[in-house]
Amino acid sequence: MGKNMMIGQSGGPTAVINSSLAGAIEYGLLAEEIDNIYGMINGIEGLLEDNIINLTLMFKSLPHELNRLKHSPAMFLGSCRYKLSGSEEEYRNIFNLLEKHQVGYFIYIGGNDSMDTVKQLSDYGARHNIDVRIVGIPKTIDNDLVGIDHSPGFGSAAKYIAACVREVAYDTSIYSIKSVHIIEAMGRDAGWLTAASVLARQDNMPAPHLVYLPEVPFSVEQFIRDVKKKLEEYNSVIVVVSEGIKDENGEYISAKQDTGADRFGHARLSGTSAYLKSVIEEEVGCKVRALEPSVLQRSAGHICSLCDVNEAFNLGSVAVRAALDGKTGVFSTLRRTSDKPYCVEYYTEDVAVVANNEKRVPRGWINQEGNDVTEEMVTYLRPLIRGTVQTPFRSGLPDYIDIRHLDIKAQKYKD
Amino acid sequence: MGKNMMIGQSGGPTAVINSSLAGAIEYGLLAEEIDNIYGMINGIEGLLEDNIINLTLMFKSLPHELNRLKHSPAMFLGSCRYKLSGSEEEYRNIFNLLEKHQVGYFIYIGGNDSMDTVKQLSDYGARHNIDVRIVGIPKTIDNDLVGIDHSPGFGSAAKYIAACVREVAYDTSIYSIKSVHIIEAMGRDAGWLTAASVLARQDNMPAPHLVYLPEVPFSVEQFIRDVKKKLEEYNSVIVVVSEGIKDENGEYISAKQDTGADRFGHARLSGTSAYLKSVIEEEVGCKVRALEPSVLQRSAGHICSLCDVNEAFNLGSVAVRAALDGKTGVFSTLRRTSDKPYCVEYYTEDVAVVANNEKRVPRGWINQEGNDVTEEMVTYLRPLIRGTVQTPFRSGLPDYIDIRHLDIKAQKYKD
Repeated sequence: MGKNMMIGQSGGPTAVINSSLAGAIEYGLLAEEIDNIYGMINGIEGLLEDNIINLTLMFKSLPHELNRLKHSPAMFLGSCRYKLSGSEEEYRNIFNLLEKHQVGYFIYIGGNDSMDTVKQLSDYGARHNIDVRIVGIPKTIDNDLVGIDHSPGFGSAAKYIAACVREVAYDTSIYSIKSVHIIEAMGRDAGWLTAASVLARQDNMPAPHLVYLPEVPFSVEQFIRDVKKKLEEYNSVIVVVSEGIKDENGEYISAKQDTGADRFGHARLSGTSAYLKSVIEEEVGCKVRALEPSVLQRSAGHICSLCDVNEAFNLGSVAVRAALDGKTGVFSTLRRTSDKPYCVEYYTEDVAVVANNEKRVPRGWINQEGNDVTEEMVTYLRPLIRGTVQTPFRSGLPDYIDIRHLDIKAQKYKD
Repeated sequence: MGKNMMIGQSGGPTAVINSSLAGAIEYGLLAEEIDNIYGMINGIEGLLEDNIINLTLMFKSLPHELNRLKHSPAMFLGSCRYKLSGSEEEYRNIFNLLEKHQVGYFIYIGGNDSMDTVKQLSDYGARHNIDVRIVGIPKTIDNDLVGIDHSPGFGSAAKYIAACVREVAYDTSIYSIKSVHIIEAMGRDAGWLTAASVLARQDNMPAPHLVYLPEVPFSVEQFIRDVKKKLEEYNSVIVVVSEGIKDENGEYISAKQDTGADRFGHARLSGTSAYLKSVIEEEVGCKVRALEPSVLQRSAGHICSLCDVNEAFNLGSVAVRAALDGKTGVFSTLRRTSDKPYCVEYYTEDVAVVANNEKRVPRGWINQEGNDVTEEMVTYLRPLIRGTVQTPFRSGLPDYIDIRHLDIKAQKYKD
């Protein structure tokens, strides 16, 4: 008799975490070594609270739903931000529960916090000779994971931001008056997503005209000069800023709110783009808009990158295969073997590499002035947003899978 | 020898104004009565400044570009907000220019201001027995035009807002903590677009939970009660508000900024959703996000309604056919002849009906409490967002047409 596989999702959503889940389930359903695939509801919290569903029962009877899962954003199984306490009691509790459910393979999809969970559990298992293989599947829209060429979830968020910039550029191009649009991209400490906005550029459409990443100290004075200079050349100037830009003293620009009223008596607003909007209104006086796509950039399943969806799916399969091959304390990853044509190869890497680390944009990939990126960055980014996904639509809207639509009670696993 | 046709675009952008332009050009290219189709750059301003291109030359040599035009947002010919002064001199100037270019058919695509231009010019032409047929093609994302079942541009904006709400709902559904999201929809005086967000609702996904239109006076106290009540039932509450909601004294909620600091010493923020965010943060204290899709809702060509694109295209053809049939001072329009199946018929109507009028949401289509819409509204809205458009993509991004990509100088019409 085989063992069971337990899988969960953790951290913030991306458009393709469910693609990884679908890849892992599909591989698991075909593997003879695996009896049942169990899903933890809300990550490790679901395990601790015995809130577990039987994914084998669910998807063996609804095979077409696996494809819909592959193309649905957010997290089918729900998320948590649970941090292991590190206590012996908690570890023992977790491994007792895994033993109770006869789990031989534990798969966890998440960012670097979740990879730390994978590391802690696999270390504990190794110390106590417990035969549960614990494997991570990486994800984050921020692209700040170490030990992987680029993170699953990043390509789709990058495509969304670039599409936004392009559509805003078309929107503003119709008037012959001066205007500035400031678009705020996610990524508190890493500027990858902000950088990806440059993919919007086309022959005669140079938007975004200015791009500010958090890796370079931000000067409000330089920003005003940059915008004024671009306004001499263009009617409509589009700026993309990272939410996490900081001044030379390390203070977030978004924290610079309400330093009293400006010279017109208006209160300054909080938020990076809102603050910079008030600055340009005051210093330039033209029409200014601040745009903050916010959570839409991580959840826009209707405009995913096909490259991203497929890679996320494959990383799901690779993780399960690694567990079956006897690996533990690893995560599935990919390296780029060629830019033109774009090729990657999949492998696994010690989870210690990725846990609690952070990959920021190299200074050499940002231009000297700190207001644009270099050609190396563009070469790196370009393939990641490629390919259009056939998002399922019904009645005019994306038709995503929802665990609450399926009959959970009937599927619920109780031993 | 035939006459020439002059066409222009005016007002704010929508995702399908270019579909109407494509429909008019395609019909015009096939019409024997029309020698050349000229495009005014930036609407009537282009006529006055002799900034005109020859669209026949441009599209006869690039026929595949007409399809791309049909699927590109914003305005190929650029826009203006030019208001006729009504002076005899200005009228004479305009008609002299039309005569100089041998124009027999003048087509203008725009909202109710632009339809007023059509009315004034056609009235003047009729008074002076000038044989130029002047016909309007309607557009607006606000759906506030009179004399038409629904406005071209509305269906695509409605689809965008509903898709946003659905994706935000999936994004927030993954956590088991309490949160409120407040999404601000365009539509200063008419709540159609806000209402359309309810199309996001699905079996187990009741977002948006609350919807506030500008047609009903908004009470902040009632809003707080509504949100608290929904939070008792749901972890994540999603609210959609119109940018133009006003209190019982007719004051915009968005104007309620900075009435000093709140009880925690934070400045209150401007903008409808930003203000309501600060209210809920103070009164409820859970996680709150304000989301303002802003211009993205009118320019998201990548998620257009097929129904909307096709209707806009057809209204372009109908306008040109009407001009050829000898009509002037009319606009092309459509009436709904059936809901199930959804059917429309096209016709023309006196432009006086639409010019400077405004269609607001009937009170009977909003629920008693003023925080939701009725089933009649849903029946009206449902067909308008249907159908997925094959947006042209290149290198992973929407590949829209841009007049600056075409060789304007070579195409420029100078007599």
